[in-house]
Amino acid sequence: MGGDHGPQVTVPAAKKALEAYPDLELVLVGLEDELNRQVQQHSLQGEKRLRVHHASEIVAMDESPAIALKKKKDSSMRVAINLVKQGEVDACISAGNTGALMATSKFVLKTIPGIDRPAICTSLPTVTGHTHMLDLGANIDCSAEHLLQFALMGSVLAESVDENPQPSIGLLNIGSEAIKGNEVIKQASKLIEQTSLNYAGFIEGDDIYTGKVDVVVSDGFVGNVSLKTAEGLASLVNTVLKSEFKRNLFTKLAALIALPVLNRVRHTLDPRQYNGASLLGLNGIVIKSHGSADIDSFSNAIKIASIEIDKSVPARIGKEIQRHFQPQGDTTA
Amino acid sequence: MGGDHGPQVTVPAAKKALEAYPDLELVLVGLEDELNRQVQQHSLQGEKRLRVHHASEIVAMDESPAIALKKKKDSSMRVAINLVKQGEVDACISAGNTGALMATSKFVLKTIPGIDRPAICTSLPTVTGHTHMLDLGANIDCSAEHLLQFALMGSVLAESVDENPQPSIGLLNIGSEAIKGNEVIKQASKLIEQTSLNYAGFIEGDDIYTGKVDVVVSDGFVGNVSLKTAEGLASLVNTVLKSEFKRNLFTKLAALIALPVLNRVRHTLDPRQYNGASLLGLNGIVIKSHGSADIDSFSNAIKIASIEIDKSVPARIGKEIQRHFQPQGDTTA
Repeated sequence: MGGDHGPQVTVPAAKKALEAYPDLELVLVGLEDELNRQVQQHSLQGEKRLRVHHASEIVAMDESPAIALKKKKDSSMRVAINLVKQGEVDACISAGNTGALMATSKFVLKTIPGIDRPAICTSLPTVTGHTHMLDLGANIDCSAEHLLQFALMGSVLAESVDENPQPSIGLLNIGSEAIKGNEVIKQASKLIEQTSLNYAGFIEGDDIYTGKVDVVVSDGFVGNVSLKTAEGLASLVNTVLKSEFKRNLFTKLAALIALPVLNRVRHTLDPRQYNGASLLGLNGIVIKSHGSADIDSFSNAIKIASIEIDKSVPARIGKEIQRHFQPQGDTTA
Repeated sequence: MGGDHGPQVTVPAAKKALEAYPDLELVLVGLEDELNRQVQQHSLQGEKRLRVHHASEIVAMDESPAIALKKKKDSSMRVAINLVKQGEVDACISAGNTGALMATSKFVLKTIPGIDRPAICTSLPTVTGHTHMLDLGANIDCSAEHLLQFALMGSVLAESVDENPQPSIGLLNIGSEAIKGNEVIKQASKLIEQTSLNYAGFIEGDDIYTGKVDVVVSDGFVGNVSLKTAEGLASLVNTVLKSEFKRNLFTKLAALIALPVLNRVRHTLDPRQYNGASLLGLNGIVIKSHGSADIDSFSNAIKIASIEIDKSVPARIGKEIQRHFQPQGDTTA
């Protein structure tokens, strides 16, 4: 029900995902009447792999996470997460209020033993492909141990979804020399160095998009500012491109000729391809879609969920954390 | 002498600036022989508004600021800053080691009374023009009071160089709602609200490039990551554009036709136009050029210095700080 567009986007996105993935089964959680209307509108009423599960309340996009958690026990968000907890579904996907999704997921599913706080992780385009970045805003103040946990989780994610046996990990800092950065960053670097992770050391903001590393680790404040900065700059470039191509008859003609190329550029960098951030560290899979997601974007978030189900990402994170923190245990698994 | 290219860039940039600004006088500080050679090469030997001042040492780009400060008392950087201190010149411009420039400037010039730490401030392109952002890396850990000081300094800079009587100030955060952000940010917001500044509240990373505010305030860690992220994304867009336009004969033709437009876009967003970051809060004007600056970029840094001289930026900051912290004093000045 969440996001800027609600079931008008999520239901056709579900249809698209069902068509693309023949093994996929989906449960639409929310106001029954509204969902059924959309299901009919998209001729999905006979679809055996889709069902509607009623939830009477909706968490507003600007609602306080604490209030959503306490007062809205029958919200679509809460009910969907409950279904994950009960094992009725394997993942929850939401375009709703990020803070409420994080708080509710943490409350209902709890974190994996050894993980203090879940982190938000998304993939971003790079010169060579893509990179995974976390945390993107769930954790404002982080300790060195939290950053270490993010590194472990990011590594498992990249290993699982990219089938990359040794993903490289970079710690976001303001200088690549070891002398720079604050105490938390320096301490985190020492902790990550002691693991068996493929640690590449400090990286700077401009390294995110070069593909220098497969996983970028930062606290949620810095990660969020970095992500939003990139969104802002991309939008500025887009605005300037459009305005320059509209300048006169010649430039409009040039635009027409350059359009196929510009569309390919747009496609390569299209944030919709990357929509779907993972809430890592929970006993279950929860994927956050951008609130403004369109049909393509939201169906991409469903795709990410289905990959993480296939790869049993939470179980793998649990195993990696256990291996790391209890080296006397079974390390050969 | 500093930067990636040394006098091969700074001397022709000086020539360009002298041609553009008839009132400008420049002193080239560094290895006399090398500078004189460049002066001759650029036919500047008769130029009355230019002189060479010898300094026997050079601070390396990767040298520790503490060592540069202690051991290299006759470096071109130190000598140039001494000339500011002695009143022989009105500003120092350097493409050298940022940490050493900041440490040496602070040691020699001292900060303006009421300012604890200098901050690095640069202007950035926006949809509507440009914005000023500080701090960009001088101060990793900042208190609320430091952020307040940055807001005051940024406001004075925007007021002076843009002739904007009431520049709007935004505090970079991870959410525009007052509930988000860490304690330092929340406290800083309360402090800035109590001033007479035109405070617009919290902004997010994507607001930097929309032109929502005239001054963006953040701590140096977040500011540096944000700036570098933008550089990285711009470089990715550039790489993808180039590669798509080189794909085949048709796209190469399209590139040829679109080239004038793409060049205009590049020009509008050209970071060289924005080269020259101000070290604000010092008793004197110090401008940091990007190390990789070319002739155009470095001459832009000289231009920024000359504007700040014209507008007496340090004196204005001093007055504003005094007005703010001593309201019983002369507030009508």
